[in-house]
Amino acid sequence: MQPWRFVRVTDLALRRQIHDLVEDERLRTATALGKRDDEFLSLKVQGVLDCGELLVAALCEAREQYVFGRRTLPEMDLASVSCAIQNLWLAARAEGLGMGWVSIFDPVALARALSMPEGSVPVAVLCIGHVEAFYPAPMLELTGWARVRPLDQLVFHNQWSTTKSVEGTHE
Amino acid sequence: MQPWRFVRVTDLALRRQIHDLVEDERLRTATALGKRDDEFLSLKVQGVLDCGELLVAALCEAREQYVFGRRTLPEMDLASVSCAIQNLWLAARAEGLGMGWVSIFDPVALARALSMPEGSVPVAVLCIGHVEAFYPAPMLELTGWARVRPLDQLVFHNQWSTTKSVEGTHE
Repeated sequence: MQPWRFVRVTDLALRRQIHDLVEDERLRTATALGKRDDEFLSLKVQGVLDCGELLVAALCEAREQYVFGRRTLPEMDLASVSCAIQNLWLAARAEGLGMGWVSIFDPVALARALSMPEGSVPVAVLCIGHVEAFYPAPMLELTGWARVRPLDQLVFHNQWSTTKSVEGTHE
Repeated sequence: MQPWRFVRVTDLALRRQIHDLVEDERLRTATALGKRDDEFLSLKVQGVLDCGELLVAALCEAREQYVFGRRTLPEMDLASVSCAIQNLWLAARAEGLGMGWVSIFDPVALARALSMPEGSVPVAVLCIGHVEAFYPAPMLELTGWARVRPLDQLVFHNQWSTTKSVEGTHE
């Protein structure tokens, strides 16, 4: 299907515009989070102005013509672009480059800024470039924002379960 | 967020039930495709009964509590599970194993078969195992079903375009 498109952003005015969109939504997210807003606002959630390469990943227009594999699951188009982004992420990391996937923006405003056609949807602002260091653990875990759950809470055996796991089940 | 769950299916009766769900949807997809239905029905779209390991990947329930990074793009949960599946896919390939992502099923019926809770959604039936050979090109391309589009039609520069590409643009 190849529903994915990438827009490479090198124009400085456009980069600033995207940065402002992310800042706007960052404040709105902080408000929506309520009591954790100060904590949230202290997190560094983007490098839109600083990174070496800025890409916007999007779903193309006219995706409704693709039926194969998505008659009951039309959202497989987003799965496709997500896999493409994950490949880019791993390739970047293998080259010693960092990447941040920013999803804190108003998609309608970003689509307008990039002259995207009706029916297309931006799904990621990707900040790529050299970094001072890689985090030893996910940033949200290091800051105490969230904890990584162990795999045995996430992998089940034959039936959905909130207690059993593959490891704990014997055939 | 870790919204992804994996259910490992080893029970043979359950595997047959999933196979039947895929067969049902395969016939419905063929009808929806109209004139290409004979051609479509000749495609091998799954190895649910034959593969060494069968996994169902799903989105967990109660995802609405996660606001960070998805206030304007709630579908980032599907992006997350898609990245997890892509990692699994690449890891399998690195071990010499093939993987097929089947999205041809009724998600409501599959959720019922696995006792999935309200609000959770299955997004992939994953067939993993040893294969006779890897395709030299995507199967849908080899069968003439679709053509891979070149990257310069999919990557743009600063603004969306249907004609320009990064390669064709000079700063």
